[in-house]
This record gives sequence, structure tokens and C-alpha cells, in this order.
Amino acid sequence: MTYSQFIPPRRTLMGPGPSDVSIRVLHAMARPTIGHLDPEFIRLMDEIKTLLQYAFKTKNALTLPVSAPGSAGMETCFVNLIEPGEKVIVCVNGVFGRRMVENVERCGGIPILVENAWGSAVSLKSVENVLNEHTDAVALAFVHAETSTGVVSDAKGLAALAKNHDCLSIVDAVTSLGGIELEVDAWGIDAIYSGTQKCLSAAPGISPVSFSEKAAAKIQARKHPVQSWFMDLNLVMGYWGGDAKRTYHHTAPVNALYGLHESLLLLKEEGLQSAWLRHSYHHEALKAGLEALGLELTVDECCRTPQLNAVRVPDGVDEAAIRAYLLNTFNIEIGAGLGALAGKVWRIGLMGQSACRENVVLCLEALDSALSHQGYQHKAGAGVAAAELYYSN
Amino acid sequence: MTYSQFIPPRRTLMGPGPSDVSIRVLHAMARPTIGHLDPEFIRLMDEIKTLLQYAFKTKNALTLPVSAPGSAGMETCFVNLIEPGEKVIVCVNGVFGRRMVENVERCGGIPILVENAWGSAVSLKSVENVLNEHTDAVALAFVHAETSTGVVSDAKGLAALAKNHDCLSIVDAVTSLGGIELEVDAWGIDAIYSGTQKCLSAAPGISPVSFSEKAAAKIQARKHPVQSWFMDLNLVMGYWGGDAKRTYHHTAPVNALYGLHESLLLLKEEGLQSAWLRHSYHHEALKAGLEALGLELTVDECCRTPQLNAVRVPDGVDEAAIRAYLLNTFNIEIGAGLGALAGKVWRIGLMGQSACRENVVLCLEALDSALSHQGYQHKAGAGVAAAELYYSN
Repeated sequence: MTYSQFIPPRRTLMGPGPSDVSIRVLHAMARPTIGHLDPEFIRLMDEIKTLLQYAFKTKNALTLPVSAPGSAGMETCFVNLIEPGEKVIVCVNGVFGRRMVENVERCGGIPILVENAWGSAVSLKSVENVLNEHTDAVALAFVHAETSTGVVSDAKGLAALAKNHDCLSIVDAVTSLGGIELEVDAWGIDAIYSGTQKCLSAAPGISPVSFSEKAAAKIQARKHPVQSWFMDLNLVMGYWGGDAKRTYHHTAPVNALYGLHESLLLLKEEGLQSAWLRHSYHHEALKAGLEALGLELTVDECCRTPQLNAVRVPDGVDEAAIRAYLLNTFNIEIGAGLGALAGKVWRIGLMGQSACRENVVLCLEALDSALSHQGYQHKAGAGVAAAELYYSN
Repeated sequence: MTYSQFIPPRRTLMGPGPSDVSIRVLHAMARPTIGHLDPEFIRLMDEIKTLLQYAFKTKNALTLPVSAPGSAGMETCFVNLIEPGEKVIVCVNGVFGRRMVENVERCGGIPILVENAWGSAVSLKSVENVLNEHTDAVALAFVHAETSTGVVSDAKGLAALAKNHDCLSIVDAVTSLGGIELEVDAWGIDAIYSGTQKCLSAAPGISPVSFSEKAAAKIQARKHPVQSWFMDLNLVMGYWGGDAKRTYHHTAPVNALYGLHESLLLLKEEGLQSAWLRHSYHHEALKAGLEALGLELTVDECCRTPQLNAVRVPDGVDEAAIRAYLLNTFNIEIGAGLGALAGKVWRIGLMGQSACRENVVLCLEALDSALSHQGYQHKAGAGVAAAELYYSN
């Protein structure tokens, strides 16, 4: 077997993440590695914390990037906050709510499920009923924007319900951070995790997290040690904490953090509200184009998240063949359905740098061509025309 | 607060890791991100697995890079292999053996300690006694090259002892992989983890691991679920396994894996044996120079690991001031002592790309200057001269 340098193909990333990474972020990751205890690196860590506080809209001191992907950010929340035998109400309306249940179980907690149909938002009424029934629950966990379905739930309302019932709120913001309105402090969210590879448009591999004072106090008061040494925030904070003296815990992923810092600079330069607006704006253009092609978004308008569009696969169309055509002919990646939606939907992401006019137009053009290639009846050219009309208004 | 792009200072990395990262690896990380399920990325994953098998000298099918730093690689071994109530014999002769004990405890295992002085190798005789005493132990865990002390233990002998007593061997090769002789299959090692930021000279953040068939069988036959969802190899293998169909588990750190692949290409091009020799060669030059400056390596010659040199801080010399001088005047990072050795030693790394003549000479020159700056009596210029003499022979 011979080996050679890996030169990736040119892709336009319009799946459920990773999204297109800015050249500024790519270049940042290529800067020379320095030590994880270098005074200059510690200055960078402090800036990253402040920029993450900006992105999350929080003053939480316990705000930092976990040195592993979003799934590890999820696990960091559960292993630190949940002790064996504690009840956690978990809202399940897609893959990631289901994963939260797994996490609660593996921590020795007792998950109480509030199930909603895949493709629907979490019902506040159902959650309130369950909160009233299980007054000993310590936490309410839910997904803000379900990456598996493209549904946004009312995080503000759910966090308020949790607070009213003396529960901590644990929120999955992997797909929402930087893409739609999210206010950690104003909404009273206690624990939240995200990923770098969605609306922040950094490379995958890091998970920003933030914890309220109340959540931090619960972690410090634990009776059982955190089952994970790597994710134990009591230890991690010796390194990421505010003290001038940083204690080695693990070796931080130095270059990945260069990239995250640069992506957060991009967000700060654009402004959080502008980024939210941009995602919504291009979503509207994509929607107009998809509808003009006769395609249908599966999620009700009330709870669509603009950065991830679940599109019903029309009868008689080969779902996987369309994705392969887009990849091979147009170098565009879109996502397949996950779990219960496998084979039934495509997931078209407009996240971070991918939420732009070029991508919307290219994707509509490619879908048009792919549908024609399968002999699917539709009005050729109508998708791009509808998007361009939207942009011209 | 204003923010600006982070331009790292120029450093020569001669601490306990990260080591100097090759420009080829840095450039690889800056290549455009593609999807973690892209067919081209899956091809890259397969190459990385084969190259890791080369580096570990193994045919183990269960060989892959964990998407998090070395500490998570350690935890991956313990959470997958150890079930609650199982006894694990852990050899402790430094910080990382101690960390293994923490891991066993957090998995609900029962650690049986074999303690050796910090700075000494693990005693085979002591281990054998403990194995004879605890015939119900399921695993023997030890550190091949202790990063905290610069000691190498007899991994071949220890793995053989484990096998003779029907125990799995769990080996920390964070600092040893690529730097000194290591033969996973020939020595009969069952589980091993490493890091990217030491002798592989990639950026920190990823942990290569490998498991024998016997270890893999124990994982598949577990009675209790693995307590970590993120590190559960039964799930991870759905994504990293050999099947053409890869099931999404977590989003792989795409660009970090570009970097790891490139670093493994560099290792393959040089050849594993040549890399081992290079580390030993430059260690000898450094040793000659240090001795000529009147400095002393703390570890006995029999068990020194060439890529990490623990140097005794002479009486009357300010340990931290010397490191600060090296950093501020020469842009060289060397390491402080950890744990029991804090304040007593410096740790000078010659790992991966840092194991080269330029670094050895620069470090000796800088130490000479720093000692003079503190008024420490020594023969100025003798360090570099001794190293140059070694190189000229």
C-alpha cells in the first residue's frame, strides 16, 4: 500500500454540519503550535472565554470550550450535573433528545421521557404536566434546534418552566448557537453545550459549554465523584479557571482553539443579531426555491429552524441517488435523514458561512438538475428563479 | 475589550509536549473541511488506521484515533475494559500512573497499586508478587514512558507478566509512540493509548488507541454498559469500523485528522526504526552538553527515556526564573516538574520534530546563558562544544 498527502476534494457543505469553514479559520489552524501553558496561550484562552460569553449571551464564569466534539459537550453536562438516582426529565423529539436519555442512564440517573413526534416541537403543556407529576426531578433537558429534524423548540419557555419547578435546565444548542436567537442569561438557562462545526463554522472537534452559578454550585457540592476524569469540571477548571495560575489537566487542542477563536472573531465582527438575521434571510430564499421546485419542508412553519431544512423526498425519487448526484456532479454535500426519518427526508444546512446566496442558488440549481436526471416532473429553472426573485426584493 | 487575530509567538517546543509541529502538518490542517461521512474522508480514515497500525506495530483491527486528547484515550481504555468490581493492578511511578488509578476508581473498579519511587522504573519483581497475590485481577496497567519523570519501564516484560497471569495489559504510550521501541503485537500488549503532540509531532487533541482481539472480545461481552456514551467503543466502531457503511456516532475532528494523517506520513517516510534512532541520537548529544554544563539527569542511565530528559535543578538556582529566561530571551519552552518533582527538575523534551540538532544546540546555548544570568558557576560554552563534538564523531 502506498500513501500520499490527502488533498480533500472541493465541497460545498450544506448538510447538518460541518458547514463551510472560512479561509480565515483554516489559516488560523495552520499557525505554529505553542505550549498549552504558554503565557500567550493563556491570554488566548481568556479571549475565547469572553467571546464564548458573547456568543451565548451570558456572564457565566463557567464558560469554556470542551476539548472534544459536541457529543462530549453533552456528556460533560450530564456527568457533572447528574448524580446516581436523580430524576431528569428529558424531552425527546429526535435523535439528540434520545442521546440525552442514554447519557442520563449511563450516569445512573433516572430519565423521565416527554416524547413528541419527530418533526414536532417539544410541547410546553406536556412538559409542565410531567414537571407537576415528578416534583423530585432535578433537571429538565431538551434540544433547542433538533439537527435530526430541523425543529426549533421554545427554549425560553422551557427554561422558564424548569425554573418555576426548581429544576436545572440543560440545553442542546449544537445547531442553534450563532444561527438563531439564544439568550442564556435572559432565558435563565443553567447548562448549555454546542459544537464548533455548525453555525460557528469552525472545524469540528470542540464543544463550547456554559453553566450558571446554580449549576456550578451543584457540581461543586456533588456527593459522588464525576464518573469521567476527562470531563470532570472540578478538574478542568483548574486549567480553564480565572486564576493566573493554571494547573495542567490535559493538553488543550491548541490549533483547534486557534480556529475557534478566529470563528468567534468573525461572529463578533458580524454581530450576533446580524448572524441570526442572515440565517433567516437565506432560509427564506431557499424555501421559496424549494417550493417552486415542488418540494416540501416537512416541519410546520411555526417551528422550523432556518439553518437546517428537512425536505420531504417526493414519491418515486431515489433519496440516496439524489445525494450522490449532488456530491459527484456539483460537489455539494447535503444530509440524509437520521433514525425515524432515514430515507424520508434530505437535510439541507444553511449554517454559518454556508448561509449565503451562492450556496442557496447553487443548491437549487443542483437539485433541479438531479430531479431532472431522475425524470421527476417539475418546472425546470423555477427554483433558482424564485430564490433570485426573493433576493431582488 | 477589543479583539484581534491571534498570531502566536515563535517558539521552539522542548517541553513535555506539544513538540514542534512540522509545516507539512500545519498546512494539512488548513485544507478545506469536508464532511465526516464524505466517501473521500472515509478513505482517509482507512489510511489513518493502517498508518496507526504501522506506528503501533500491530495488526489489531480495533486501532483508531479517539477524537480527544491523550487523557481521553486513557479513559477510553479503562471505561471500555473495566467493569464495576473488577480488580486492576496499576503500576504507579509518576503522575500518569496515578491518573490511571483515578480512572479505575471512577469506573467502579478496584485498583491494586504497585508503587515505585518517582524517577524509578516499574519493578517487574514487585509486579509479579502482586500478580501472584491477586489472581483475580483482570488487568495490569502501566506507563511505558512516564512523561512526568522521564523514566521508561520494561513494557515487553510487563506485558509478558500480564499474559502469564491471564491479565489484560493496558499501556500508556503517550510519550513513547514514535520515540522509542514499541511493539504492540510482538510484546502481546492488549490495550494501548497515545497522543498526537509528542513524538508524532502533530497538534494536540487526538489520541490513537489500539486493542487486541482479546481486549475487543472483553468489550463486546460486557455485562454493564460502558459508562461513557462518547467513548463507548461498541458505538464508535459503527463509525470507525471496517464496514463500507459507516454509522454516524459523533462528528469527527476532520482537520485535526488531516494533521494526524500527515504526521503519520512523515513517520512512514522516515521509517519507525530511524525515528527511534534519531531520538536516541539527539538525546546523547543533549546529555553530553548538559553534563559539560555541570547539570545532571535525574534518572538512572538504565531507564532513561531519550525523548524526555529530567534535569536536576542545581542548588541555589531559581527553577522558574530559568524557564522564564529561556522563554523570554530564546523563545524556548522547556517543562517544569510535576507533582512530587515540582521545583526540583526541568523536563527537556526531544520529541518528534523537536529531536534535531538545531534544537539541542539552541537549548544548550540558552541554558548556558540563563545559568550565567543567575551567576551560577559553570564552564561557559562547554555545553554546545560537547554536543558539537558528539555530532562531529
